[in-house]
Amino acid sequence: MRNIRLTISYDGTNYSGWQRQKGSLEKGTIQGTIEEALERLLQEKVKLIGSGRTDSGVHATAQVANFKTKSSLSLREIRRGLNGLLDKDIRIKNIKGVPEKFNSRYAVCSKTYQYIISHQDSPFLEHYTCFCPTQLDLPAMRKAAKALLGKHDFSSFQAAGSRIKDSVRSIKKLSIRKKKAILGNLILIEIEADGFLYKMARNIIGTLLEVGQGKKVPRDIKKILDKKNRKFAGPTAPAKGLYLKEVKYRRLGAIS
Amino acid sequence: MRNIRLTISYDGTNYSGWQRQKGSLEKGTIQGTIEEALERLLQEKVKLIGSGRTDSGVHATAQVANFKTKSSLSLREIRRGLNGLLDKDIRIKNIKGVPEKFNSRYAVCSKTYQYIISHQDSPFLEHYTCFCPTQLDLPAMRKAAKALLGKHDFSSFQAAGSRIKDSVRSIKKLSIRKKKAILGNLILIEIEADGFLYKMARNIIGTLLEVGQGKKVPRDIKKILDKKNRKFAGPTAPAKGLYLKEVKYRRLGAIS
Repeated sequence: MRNIRLTISYDGTNYSGWQRQKGSLEKGTIQGTIEEALERLLQEKVKLIGSGRTDSGVHATAQVANFKTKSSLSLREIRRGLNGLLDKDIRIKNIKGVPEKFNSRYAVCSKTYQYIISHQDSPFLEHYTCFCPTQLDLPAMRKAAKALLGKHDFSSFQAAGSRIKDSVRSIKKLSIRKKKAILGNLILIEIEADGFLYKMARNIIGTLLEVGQGKKVPRDIKKILDKKNRKFAGPTAPAKGLYLKEVKYRRLGAIS
Repeated sequence: MRNIRLTISYDGTNYSGWQRQKGSLEKGTIQGTIEEALERLLQEKVKLIGSGRTDSGVHATAQVANFKTKSSLSLREIRRGLNGLLDKDIRIKNIKGVPEKFNSRYAVCSKTYQYIISHQDSPFLEHYTCFCPTQLDLPAMRKAAKALLGKHDFSSFQAAGSRIKDSVRSIKKLSIRKKKAILGNLILIEIEADGFLYKMARNIIGTLLEVGQGKKVPRDIKKILDKKNRKFAGPTAPAKGLYLKEVKYRRLGAIS
């Protein structure tokens, strides 16, 4: 069996998130859509393992996934075949053969998400950014971000009702910057961590937005972390502004 | 009667162009959609006059249109009411009262279109740029652009079968530049003229793209203009990369 790793970008607007789900959905899932295309192409049953799920409406510029196959098609043929079968809102950017033990989900070392905020109510940004009509206090947001850096119990930032035992994660980077774009000025938030609890990225962004709007102050962050209770953090930021930007892996030697 | 001028941005992806059309269309038109919203809001029959049509799939960041009304709603109320009734892919950016004689179509002094080319096959750029897999020779394209500047008979660049008598137009600006964007590098072509023949902007872009790909050379431009025959120019560039960016008007004194 060959083990093949894909780097995938997708516009999440028209999908019910990454993960294949049981029952009938209004929209398809990214995983299910790519699995179906792979099965048509390779004429065998395929199980695609993603680095993790992304929610409905969340985008990716570099999601990583792998699958095993007996097919003798070349990597180039598989990539071209897939891109031919898939709608243009999912693109296979890269393909490579990896050792049999590589697993896109379990070998993750860190993930980076990007969040885009716009101050313009533009038709072109509607599905791709979170619209914020008021100006944001970026220095205050950066102070708050600093308090989130490093290793913490992020219970307050995970979706209510989650039952994960170990909610300690380590945020390696959390930057906030302005970017001049063709269609108006944007604010980009980038967050890298060794792992994310369910909705953690969007709950952190929602809390930072409240700091930017003066509804919270930077020193609230430590208190929120200490409470270990979802109700003290800010609201979940909209999915449409979020992009899975990079997945880093441990060296393969470390997996085996 | 009040005369009201709107500045409108729209994502043309899901519309059959600007102009209201007879018969049943698969998709609506921008003009028809805004007229319907205005009629619901103002409770009277409304005729919306645009600066000109845009084709199916073409976008606008600042289309201009005007309409007359007996309504006593304030400008702010009309703008907010319209944006509330319209889908997010059409936005009223600006509204103002104008003298009764102002006509969005006949008072045009110049129009500017922007065309966006991407070298990345990205799901996020699919409906908003023209994808070009090969690198383009920008210096050659700029030389060709220079030959198009100024007053010429643009018969060779108008859609075949057009029966306009006066096909002389004046191109005031034609710039080609690279732009680093969040999702990859883009090439922006900006073209300003006192008027555009049917499909002239896209036929000029299509010809410049052929120059950029080495299929034509800059000195071919003069020959193409001289032929006054559509078949000598390049193909029509895809609609989805084109944006109506600005409409300039003659001073109102000059209209009356």
